[in-house]
Amino acid sequence: MKHISLLGATGSIGTQTLDVIRKHPSHFKLDSMSVGRNIDLALQQVHEFSPNLLSVQTKEDYDKVIHDVPSQTKVVYGEEGLVEVATDPKSDILVNAVLGSVGLSPTLAAIKERKAIAIANKETLVTAGHLVTSAAKDFGVPLLPVDSEHSAIFQALNGEKRTEIEKLILTASGGSFRDRSRAELENVTVHEALNHPNWSMGAKITIDSATMMNKGLEVIEARWLFDIPYEKIDVVLHKESIIHSMVEYIDGSVIAQLGTPDMRVPIQYALTYPNRLESISNERLNLWEIGTLNFSKLDTERYRCMSFAYEAGKIGGTMPTVLNAANEVAVAYFLDNELSFLQIEQKIEQALERHQAISEPTLKDIIEVDAETRAFIHSSMK
Amino acid sequence: MKHISLLGATGSIGTQTLDVIRKHPSHFKLDSMSVGRNIDLALQQVHEFSPNLLSVQTKEDYDKVIHDVPSQTKVVYGEEGLVEVATDPKSDILVNAVLGSVGLSPTLAAIKERKAIAIANKETLVTAGHLVTSAAKDFGVPLLPVDSEHSAIFQALNGEKRTEIEKLILTASGGSFRDRSRAELENVTVHEALNHPNWSMGAKITIDSATMMNKGLEVIEARWLFDIPYEKIDVVLHKESIIHSMVEYIDGSVIAQLGTPDMRVPIQYALTYPNRLESISNERLNLWEIGTLNFSKLDTERYRCMSFAYEAGKIGGTMPTVLNAANEVAVAYFLDNELSFLQIEQKIEQALERHQAISEPTLKDIIEVDAETRAFIHSSMK
Repeated sequence: MKHISLLGATGSIGTQTLDVIRKHPSHFKLDSMSVGRNIDLALQQVHEFSPNLLSVQTKEDYDKVIHDVPSQTKVVYGEEGLVEVATDPKSDILVNAVLGSVGLSPTLAAIKERKAIAIANKETLVTAGHLVTSAAKDFGVPLLPVDSEHSAIFQALNGEKRTEIEKLILTASGGSFRDRSRAELENVTVHEALNHPNWSMGAKITIDSATMMNKGLEVIEARWLFDIPYEKIDVVLHKESIIHSMVEYIDGSVIAQLGTPDMRVPIQYALTYPNRLESISNERLNLWEIGTLNFSKLDTERYRCMSFAYEAGKIGGTMPTVLNAANEVAVAYFLDNELSFLQIEQKIEQALERHQAISEPTLKDIIEVDAETRAFIHSSMK
Repeated sequence: MKHISLLGATGSIGTQTLDVIRKHPSHFKLDSMSVGRNIDLALQQVHEFSPNLLSVQTKEDYDKVIHDVPSQTKVVYGEEGLVEVATDPKSDILVNAVLGSVGLSPTLAAIKERKAIAIANKETLVTAGHLVTSAAKDFGVPLLPVDSEHSAIFQALNGEKRTEIEKLILTASGGSFRDRSRAELENVTVHEALNHPNWSMGAKITIDSATMMNKGLEVIEARWLFDIPYEKIDVVLHKESIIHSMVEYIDGSVIAQLGTPDMRVPIQYALTYPNRLESISNERLNLWEIGTLNFSKLDTERYRCMSFAYEAGKIGGTMPTVLNAANEVAVAYFLDNELSFLQIEQKIEQALERHQAISEPTLKDIIEVDAETRAFIHSSMK
């Protein structure tokens, strides 16, 4: 029985993590959870899974739920609440499925308590990869990827030697606008951008898929998760999202992980690793039904966010923090119809250009640069 | 430094094995070798690699070469010669790349001398899988696949648990006639059949690819190599031969090995396992250049040899021996223009229908059934 702390239970990854826990009650027990704005769903989840600890976002939320939770569930809130969930003494593993850089402090706290980390919150690695990976190493804690791409690479590395890697090859669906030219991106709507062809995901990551910033963040995440230089990380467009990613070895062999586009498979793998459990879905990959897998080269003129990510990653230090923070705020403005689709990348570019990277930043440096970048984007909107 | 015995040095797999040895002189030393009918090539090879031991097919060949080999090379011949090469005390690993069931006795002899076995000779496993795998188990000897499909599965199993396999999925190019209907197969020529679209291989295996008997034999081989029941071995047509084969796990994840169609990659992997060495070829798999991978369902009406193989495999005992022996002789008659292409499967069907399988056959049973089957096909030609 594995005891689980879950940050972000009401989000897309969170609810799918609960699907996995529900499917395998003899293997998993949810001990503690944090939730977002959807309090009704949160209360349903609490009644179903009876965690010992629930963290809500605000004092107001706390007041709303405190009389509706089961008696054994302690309720906390705010950033301290996230850390309390992450460090729950009963849990073996933290599933970090919150959105944005708010996931960083609880992750570092959980590592110090020697919890395994199932990491769906890519901003944690993007903004503070050096801190998280070195802490994980110091405390002997595994970082288990949840993203389908990183899970694929993680699986393709099973039983292999890191020194024999030639390169990592991330696949990218190309997002909602993969069949449009750059000129056609000028006037796309939020509604169109949210219509991802393959994956059912949250709003922010769906927009990130459309701009390809999602893939850029994944490249940076891969650099930290697998300790591989950017020169050895490639991206190939693969619109069916069946090959989730690949590893090429020095002998020319390529090992790939394939599957139907179902996030519950990589989530489950992170929870069961190094074992596997029966599939949560009855749907099996059937290549002769799919018929054709297509691949094409990434056009970094078309997808400028990919170039920004490689550049920011190579510069390193606080530059990926700026990339990530500027992107988060710009995407929020796009979702509120206050920026056009192509203005997202303009805002990110402006933020990157004005920033002088701090190398080997501390957590404090990162938090400051993050806040400063957000403030810059907000002020630029006035 | 790994010391190598090579059976079948002048064949397609043999010469490619020598390419690998030539590429990595500080890792591999050829100690002993057997050769086929191409004596000129054999002498070139002996002068290049200076093995301690050379086995030729006949006394006549022996007389031909004995004065042309370097002084340190001992020459032997015949079936005893093969066994002497296979059991060469200096060698660590036997590469069995001879054609047909003649590879069986030397393989069993090498296992008893605790050599690792790199097995390209699929008839050894098809006709005597139970003997070879139980001997390998008893003597603690690894059976290392050389076929690209089995090497792919072997690699996809790295670091994984056999109990978590859902099924093995062999890919099949479909061979020379994959785009022809059954009616169009009536009058195909030997020349057409030898024109394989993807792989450069020997004549017999190229015909076996065209009839799909090659894939049928591979299914039986996979059953023994990986100890998996036939119900869990699938075949999918994949005309580009880029995904070399796959393993599906119980959680729905599929792990695949991909590469350019170059037999030297799996040969090298068998020699370096569990490590990898730099690629022998400069050509790297580039999926965006390939563009599209296609998959389709296998039609067992169209490819009757596949059905024969599954049926013979499931019956077991000496039935696969009959399948293999009848196929070898029928293909030889086809190559001599004495049988039409579709008559190959007719001959095999006749041989299978008249045979009463012996379960748990001894080596003697197998040799007798093999000889008896060959005699039946020969007599049916008169």
